[in-house]
Amino acid sequence: MTHNQLLEEIREKASFLCVGLDTEKEKIPAFLQGEKDPLFAFNRKIIDATARYAVAYKINSAFYESCGAEGWISLEKTVKYIKEKHPGIFVIADAKRGDIGNTSRMYAKAFLGNMPFDAITVAPYMGEDSVAPFLSFPDKWAIILALTSNRGADDFQYHSDDGIKLFERVISVSRKWGTIDNTMFVIGATKPEMLREVRKIVPDHFLLVPGVGAQGGSLAEVAKFGMNSSCGLLVNSSRAIIFADSTRSFADAAAVKAQEMQTEMAEYLRQKKLI
Amino acid sequence: MTHNQLLEEIREKASFLCVGLDTEKEKIPAFLQGEKDPLFAFNRKIIDATARYAVAYKINSAFYESCGAEGWISLEKTVKYIKEKHPGIFVIADAKRGDIGNTSRMYAKAFLGNMPFDAITVAPYMGEDSVAPFLSFPDKWAIILALTSNRGADDFQYHSDDGIKLFERVISVSRKWGTIDNTMFVIGATKPEMLREVRKIVPDHFLLVPGVGAQGGSLAEVAKFGMNSSCGLLVNSSRAIIFADSTRSFADAAAVKAQEMQTEMAEYLRQKKLI
Repeated sequence: MTHNQLLEEIREKASFLCVGLDTEKEKIPAFLQGEKDPLFAFNRKIIDATARYAVAYKINSAFYESCGAEGWISLEKTVKYIKEKHPGIFVIADAKRGDIGNTSRMYAKAFLGNMPFDAITVAPYMGEDSVAPFLSFPDKWAIILALTSNRGADDFQYHSDDGIKLFERVISVSRKWGTIDNTMFVIGATKPEMLREVRKIVPDHFLLVPGVGAQGGSLAEVAKFGMNSSCGLLVNSSRAIIFADSTRSFADAAAVKAQEMQTEMAEYLRQKKLI
Repeated sequence: MTHNQLLEEIREKASFLCVGLDTEKEKIPAFLQGEKDPLFAFNRKIIDATARYAVAYKINSAFYESCGAEGWISLEKTVKYIKEKHPGIFVIADAKRGDIGNTSRMYAKAFLGNMPFDAITVAPYMGEDSVAPFLSFPDKWAIILALTSNRGADDFQYHSDDGIKLFERVISVSRKWGTIDNTMFVIGATKPEMLREVRKIVPDHFLLVPGVGAQGGSLAEVAKFGMNSSCGLLVNSSRAIIFADSTRSFADAAAVKAQEMQTEMAEYLRQKKLI
């Protein structure tokens, strides 16, 4: 998928919502626990209920790996289901991979070759040759961790060298590894004013913004500081949507939460004259 | 496994060799490709042939993930086989994981809870709360990426803030998250003189050193600059051992390569009066 195709999807749905499928087995409603594949049964209902409000899904691989080989099958089935039913939707493997070249090639094969993911999140610490293999698949994206939304982001990401913070250096160095058609950056929403600094370095790139919702970030501030003339934002919400309710109505409740976010997003897109 | 138990294993075998099971399916000898589980069939023979010379195995998860759910099963079978046949051997999941707390907990469950790995390699970029879940399993270890052996290590790891390089900051900050009984650091062998700097910060910790062999690092220099009074080193070799030969004699060839390294290691252990 290209930058422009993603923008078209955003305009059509009046949304830049990414729904995070952090599907924790223990949190799946009790009536689904007896299914042969509870993770996929849950995801399918969430996807069917929220796809009209979302332009992207982000599948958090840790939650599937914690269920062993069965979980890996649920992961495969989920990404295939989204791409078959909703081919215009952008699907991200949130896997935070990155290793020496021959190993990153294997991770890229696992997620971008064998499975129809559009993108994978990658860790920048090991530098260019650890990310390059993810950029070698046509129309696929690497989403590079820059500024994360957790407390530990302070440990290294804010440390500065000659006045340049590590996350700023990560962005300014790694933006040269690819293009705006195959590279995004993860920028957490918990300090949305940092998006202003990020936009000085990468005015045109898409940013994947987690941390809105359960982690406390403000959608209004993210839009204010982060939106550019092609929107340039995918804002993720996971638990606040998918675990909004634990009864038989869980998918309806998820749709309500997703629609609330989409409605607010439409307003910001209108203000920016993008729709 | 504790620091002292690992040292005992090193003394008994006169070795600090870690064999890396970077088992690339396409490189497995042709006569094994028809097996039901070629990755496990290959690994089992490599393990049986090399276990007398190795104190650790490092299973590189990327190579298994690239084979999908079947690969995940091969990974599970491999770690279980090692722990059942050779319970004294230290088994590392080389997975380079790390994410926000609730996600790292899932990765920790996947590798240290569900599977009998002794340790997992973790990425430091997201800070303390991304690593803490891996340190919450008794007798299990987190091996924190500090200085890697690839070209891209120059992109960020050597950048300095007030004269302290990022990899030095990673070590000096993260050593406080755990103890010498549950934390190691990855230090690549391609610039072994850097081990002298590392030893100033963590004189007592074990270091996992990749990059000897196929990547060109020198075992003699690693021992010279990195060994401490408890050995403090696990030196990994992957391709140079496991793919030494592609015929029916591949396991014998791997044993020869492993023994060569063990013999050299025994000499360095004697020089240090550890055996």
